[in-house]
Amino acid sequence: MQISSQVGNANPGPVERSPGGPRLTAKGKATRQRIVLAASQAFSERGVTASSNDDILAVAGASHSQLYHYFTDRHDLVAAVIADRVEHVFSHQTSLLADLDSIEGPRLWRDATVALQQDPDRRHGCPIGSLVGELSERDPRSRQAFAAAFERWHDAIRHGLERMRESGEISTAADPDSLALAILAVLEGGLLLSQITRSTSRLELALDSMIDLIASYRP
Amino acid sequence: MQISSQVGNANPGPVERSPGGPRLTAKGKATRQRIVLAASQAFSERGVTASSNDDILAVAGASHSQLYHYFTDRHDLVAAVIADRVEHVFSHQTSLLADLDSIEGPRLWRDATVALQQDPDRRHGCPIGSLVGELSERDPRSRQAFAAAFERWHDAIRHGLERMRESGEISTAADPDSLALAILAVLEGGLLLSQITRSTSRLELALDSMIDLIASYRP
Repeated sequence: MQISSQVGNANPGPVERSPGGPRLTAKGKATRQRIVLAASQAFSERGVTASSNDDILAVAGASHSQLYHYFTDRHDLVAAVIADRVEHVFSHQTSLLADLDSIEGPRLWRDATVALQQDPDRRHGCPIGSLVGELSERDPRSRQAFAAAFERWHDAIRHGLERMRESGEISTAADPDSLALAILAVLEGGLLLSQITRSTSRLELALDSMIDLIASYRP
Repeated sequence: MQISSQVGNANPGPVERSPGGPRLTAKGKATRQRIVLAASQAFSERGVTASSNDDILAVAGASHSQLYHYFTDRHDLVAAVIADRVEHVFSHQTSLLADLDSIEGPRLWRDATVALQQDPDRRHGCPIGSLVGELSERDPRSRQAFAAAFERWHDAIRHGLERMRESGEISTAADPDSLALAILAVLEGGLLLSQITRSTSRLELALDSMIDLIASYRP
């Protein structure tokens, strides 16, 4: 591969701006995404600090000059991995959570969420929550990104429960806000237990208890 | 301080065996514990890999030769930190969970668990769960230690709920096993949300929902 094509100048194609970074051609965008995915995989397998740039770039098939073309520094790469994981989570969760308006909705969401964890490539716990322990205390930008992601997740679950309450599926005694928080917390804790036991059985049982809790509010 | 006292030979005192390590005098045990606590604090603030031995030993007031006297390698130090955190968690949780035999028990446990998180020195999420993301995939010994700790925690909560069921505080329709898992999962997820938001409000609301779930089984 020639240098000129590596940095995406051979055929510029459509140009767009990456978040906070340079304007990117389609080829540049693809290279940037390869680096993000290689970093994300390394972070899951070894942790953030233990993942060297050399290892990430070897998997991505990219150079150090490309790394610093697309990312201002290591913090910027970590932020890009978190943003990519957040979008990946919501690409699955958004449509599932939109169906929370009937009493069947929570069970369908539970089944689909458990099924995702049974994919061997996704057995690293929550894509967002599993990064919190290593990054949250030392990297304020990461901590804010985690907080925003979980707030968005909490809102999506709460909106589903509010629709269930408005349609009379659950009674007005149910508090969608605290119920949504409990569901999100069970999901995070259940994903952590799945990661360390390499089994989804505890996640399934814990989520079943939340389905029972929602069902306890049926009029 | 003289080298002879640093390695604990000046006044041997009572001797005991550290887990998998050398026989320790009281002074040796204290030095070992200073290293464990300094490492534990560094792991919370910066992550495991990003915590250098130099930084840990500077805080502990100990030498590299002492580090390798008490720990065979870095994995051994990490294992000691996890073991110390597990014992610390259970020193609080065991007596609280022993009181789960009445309907007031879960609320007392909830209040005491939240109060601990309001201590500024303990605002790093779950002492055990916050290490999972960085270590679980790459360190089988850590992963097994995490799994054993959460199994012990799950058992303790389940035993409390079983006693509540036996005494008629909750009905036989309640499944102590899955209910205990849900409580543990909510606690872990709630601690994660506390860590990233620097507030216990979400943990409190999520745990309140679990108290509601237990109360829904009152006969």
